[in-house]
Amino acid sequence: MDWKSLHSLPLKNIQIDDNYWNRYIRLVPEKIIPYQWEVLNDRVADAAPSYCLQNFKIAAGEASGERKGAVFQDSDVGKWLEAVAYSLESTPNEKLEKIADDVIALIGRAQCADGYINTYFTIKEGGRRWKNLTMGHELYTAGHLIEAAVAYYNATRKDAFLKIMCRFADLICKEFGPAEGQRHGCPGHEEIELALIKLYRVTGEQRYLDTAKYFVDTRGQKPNYFLQEIGQKDFHEVYDERKFFFPEYSQSDQPVREQTHAEGHAVRAVYLYCAMADLAGEYQDAELLESCQRLWNDMVNRQMYITGSIGSCANYEGFTVDYDLPNDTNYSETCASIGLALFGLRMSRVTGEASYLDTVERALYNTVRAGISQEGDRYFYVNPLEVWPENCLPHSAKEHVKPVRQKWFDVACCPTNVARTLTSLGQYIYSVSNNDLYLNLFVGNQTEVKLNGTPVELQLACDFPVSGQMTLTVAAEQETEFTLRMRVPAYAKNYSLRVNGQIQAVKIEKGFAVLKRKWKKDTIAISFDMEAKFVSANPQVRADAGRIALVRGPETFCLEEADNGKNLSAVFVNRKTALMTAYDAKLCGGVNVIHFEGERLNEEDWDADTLYSAKEPVYQPVMLKAVPYACWGNRQSGEMLVWMHAKD
Amino acid sequence: MDWKSLHSLPLKNIQIDDNYWNRYIRLVPEKIIPYQWEVLNDRVADAAPSYCLQNFKIAAGEASGERKGAVFQDSDVGKWLEAVAYSLESTPNEKLEKIADDVIALIGRAQCADGYINTYFTIKEGGRRWKNLTMGHELYTAGHLIEAAVAYYNATRKDAFLKIMCRFADLICKEFGPAEGQRHGCPGHEEIELALIKLYRVTGEQRYLDTAKYFVDTRGQKPNYFLQEIGQKDFHEVYDERKFFFPEYSQSDQPVREQTHAEGHAVRAVYLYCAMADLAGEYQDAELLESCQRLWNDMVNRQMYITGSIGSCANYEGFTVDYDLPNDTNYSETCASIGLALFGLRMSRVTGEASYLDTVERALYNTVRAGISQEGDRYFYVNPLEVWPENCLPHSAKEHVKPVRQKWFDVACCPTNVARTLTSLGQYIYSVSNNDLYLNLFVGNQTEVKLNGTPVELQLACDFPVSGQMTLTVAAEQETEFTLRMRVPAYAKNYSLRVNGQIQAVKIEKGFAVLKRKWKKDTIAISFDMEAKFVSANPQVRADAGRIALVRGPETFCLEEADNGKNLSAVFVNRKTALMTAYDAKLCGGVNVIHFEGERLNEEDWDADTLYSAKEPVYQPVMLKAVPYACWGNRQSGEMLVWMHAKD
Repeated sequence: MDWKSLHSLPLKNIQIDDNYWNRYIRLVPEKIIPYQWEVLNDRVADAAPSYCLQNFKIAAGEASGERKGAVFQDSDVGKWLEAVAYSLESTPNEKLEKIADDVIALIGRAQCADGYINTYFTIKEGGRRWKNLTMGHELYTAGHLIEAAVAYYNATRKDAFLKIMCRFADLICKEFGPAEGQRHGCPGHEEIELALIKLYRVTGEQRYLDTAKYFVDTRGQKPNYFLQEIGQKDFHEVYDERKFFFPEYSQSDQPVREQTHAEGHAVRAVYLYCAMADLAGEYQDAELLESCQRLWNDMVNRQMYITGSIGSCANYEGFTVDYDLPNDTNYSETCASIGLALFGLRMSRVTGEASYLDTVERALYNTVRAGISQEGDRYFYVNPLEVWPENCLPHSAKEHVKPVRQKWFDVACCPTNVARTLTSLGQYIYSVSNNDLYLNLFVGNQTEVKLNGTPVELQLACDFPVSGQMTLTVAAEQETEFTLRMRVPAYAKNYSLRVNGQIQAVKIEKGFAVLKRKWKKDTIAISFDMEAKFVSANPQVRADAGRIALVRGPETFCLEEADNGKNLSAVFVNRKTALMTAYDAKLCGGVNVIHFEGERLNEEDWDADTLYSAKEPVYQPVMLKAVPYACWGNRQSGEMLVWMHAKD
Repeated sequence: MDWKSLHSLPLKNIQIDDNYWNRYIRLVPEKIIPYQWEVLNDRVADAAPSYCLQNFKIAAGEASGERKGAVFQDSDVGKWLEAVAYSLESTPNEKLEKIADDVIALIGRAQCADGYINTYFTIKEGGRRWKNLTMGHELYTAGHLIEAAVAYYNATRKDAFLKIMCRFADLICKEFGPAEGQRHGCPGHEEIELALIKLYRVTGEQRYLDTAKYFVDTRGQKPNYFLQEIGQKDFHEVYDERKFFFPEYSQSDQPVREQTHAEGHAVRAVYLYCAMADLAGEYQDAELLESCQRLWNDMVNRQMYITGSIGSCANYEGFTVDYDLPNDTNYSETCASIGLALFGLRMSRVTGEASYLDTVERALYNTVRAGISQEGDRYFYVNPLEVWPENCLPHSAKEHVKPVRQKWFDVACCPTNVARTLTSLGQYIYSVSNNDLYLNLFVGNQTEVKLNGTPVELQLACDFPVSGQMTLTVAAEQETEFTLRMRVPAYAKNYSLRVNGQIQAVKIEKGFAVLKRKWKKDTIAISFDMEAKFVSANPQVRADAGRIALVRGPETFCLEEADNGKNLSAVFVNRKTALMTAYDAKLCGGVNVIHFEGERLNEEDWDADTLYSAKEPVYQPVMLKAVPYACWGNRQSGEMLVWMHAKD
């Protein structure tokens, strides 16, 4: 096996300048972080209340009242601080840093003497620590706060938050493990595992890595910890878990090394897989890596939507059976796509394979960006591929589908998750080792990196995904040899490279075009075409039979009512119709839209009181316009459809 | 308005002899009633326990232990006794009558001194009578017992049960009403209304009719009774109603006379509409009849499946928005189709219109008969139009879909409802007034009826729906004039009539072919063709766009895995393909099946690891076989599909 030790570059070394992302990257410090701060403080009218900061104040003894919100509400402040940390690392901001320092100090004051932090259990359930791993989310919440502390330390080099979280992590490492007197359990909602690995990487403390490994390997062992826990007479439910819980829900029906099917709650699953991928690299654990590959393949090749989302079933927000991909009742949580991207990025770094990045890109350029409005202050939690607003009724099977982005949610994991993803986008663009630089994503940027011991300045100028023509400029302090590896996406046509104007023979290794040479001041022109085209789904996908979807590069397109009228199910398209791509500067900061001819079932032919008829359908030609899925719902509430009826 | 006073004939005057129904009619006394009796006594292994008889024994003080089962569990014994009564009326059976008499005596002993009957509230919630109309089901349960008592009195002329239930009805009439000191509420689950009307018709007591009318008219008045009730501090939930309940669920968001959209829980709705139709006739209430017609039209023309089922949404077992007819997540409860048939039959009798009977027949010949297995001992509760057994996972959005018929259910309203429908089928065949005989359904039978004062014997010999050729023989004791009105279904082609061999000019009134003349001993040959044909749904039905369904006469057909292999979504059919109808003597007592050519997406062309591809799909010709929906799932567990992909 070819073990890589690829890693990200520090965000402070990367400045993104990219037409596709600029609008959103700029919105983060200007609007998204301040808006979310207001929400976390319960100061946004008509938004679902967060209670986050108030809960910490109560836990610190600085406010009185009832602790409110979900049991895992503390995690929102964690992800918000993580977003702030990445933002500060890219763009220092004294005022914001002061706010963050204050929040961190508050978290410190809310910490128990023994290091424990959790406002729900501290305020409400003092005596019940660690007694509901199934749904109590203590370790999940700890994980998000640890991720934030690591990010804040990396950004500011201030260690107050890191110390706070190390104290809590130490408590967790003492509490959980295989030894006698330790608790032999693992979290119902994974997250602590990947966080402890980050903490190990920044502190070098082996116990954090070992505990992460313990959590991963104890999951799914017999007897099932969660079933035993729920079976206790004094078990205290927080979410009706005696009725609701089943082992597959938390990936605990069998040991992770034996699992072959991505199952249960999708966000839980991908956070677990992230830790598995990290551990496979850290421990050079081939068996664990094979599990990761098996689960990745099952997920991406049999359970993933064409928008890079996962989770076919709303009831438990998770996976079902292979090829079950309903388009209008699915969950496809924004957080799950973020987790999918995080897992894929790790897999690309452990294996050195580019193919994982096609999926990372698909998730980021479709569902993740769809998760936030053009204005930055409205969010999707659930991301179906077909929306009929009038039937997303309260109490119904589509109650979870919100046809318009929301100000906030009672369970609000997604908005802060989107924020931290946008502010950490720079971590996705490159992977580096000593002598190799991998270009993963085509996001315009200026970057400083040390390669083969020599400082190198890089600039990627591009207009992706509008165009696949781009220029990577290399400026090394002195001539030095290193290898550039530029991802060749699966969708790239006519891929070519020129160095300083000279066409190069393209040598591809593991999906990357490889240029190994001495560099000084050089210009690499990367060029590939992206065809707009219709695709079909595997015939096993019952929901997509007889339907086609329109893609171009990493983008999936959709029809919206705003462009194509009501009742998009009445639209039929011949897959050979000509596709005309055009640039729309107004939509979401500038994107391509696609025009094409189609047909429409003549509705006027039917009266409202005829439900079934043997009459032959009459079609009318219509011009259609598709927009990127990432941009849908940014104009008015209306229908949306990804998978169009094919009329071959 | 042309007020009709049409009614059924007594079951004892009708002997059914009909190839389509014989198997099931015969199964009722031989197997279904005895099997259900065993279940109601908890003596069937691996069936969900009923507790029904045990609960009555506990309430009567003749057994000890906990009262178990749903709050409305008593109603199952009511519907079973009603089925027994109809069976005894058609076919006397001493042993069965003895069992029924014993059960009735037990119910009598479980009755409170003031007439109240309900094992849940008597045993478990003594002090809480009438305090949870929202979900307590006391009036619903009372209604089913009253229906049974009326049926038992009609069948046996024994009045013990009727007296028991009159005492309870009297208590209800005292408790509920507009006067001071009375409770100004109505039942969360309708049923008592139609039952009180039946009780009025057999006893002549006006108060029963008036209370039924009160219940109907007080529903939906402001302030909402149920919301007020739930809002009480001491309100005691039985089914999480504070979280779950919304006024539309029980058709109570506005007065029934103002309602235009069939809404909420489907069984509740149709039981309400039955009472509305009865009251419209009893009170000659044009406004109420208009409401019935409006709601009927909305239901049948915009919210009904082609299998005669209703209830698009599983979450609350009910209606959603017009044209929302998903095929794989729907509820389409067997009981709701029975209620639809009961409502349609009443509407045909109040208005004299035949069109309602097309829907009655559609419900009976598709979903109702699908509700019970060929062997009579397994039941469907939920009736989707598309089943993929592997994805009907526990905990999922399709958890409610059982791909195979079940022995019994925790909530077991459907099996006894099917039993009472099969034993009362004779009530559907004819409607009569003094001088008019309406032939509603083409079910072979021999019948005695008095028309224009003269006893007349009728015999209908037919092989419907295999054939539309049938003979109605009339034998009057003496020559007498009356009008025969024979339904001309909407699907009938080339309808013709011959009397004693002489072709007749067909005069159609309100959908019935009318023959007014003097009859003595005459033979009417009715003849019409039924084409097998593909139909489309209204283009507003998003779920059926690009799809076609196969129908012939009242029957809807489906593809089954047993005949057509796995993955029925990969099947495409040109609507002009030739349809070959053939008789299959082995399936469900003998039915037509239909063979035709289609195409199948080539699955071997794809590997399991390719989810999306721009490759053009490859189709292969296949021979397909469709069976009546009523018969599906009688061979082995497998996929089923009604709406096939059209390839025009």
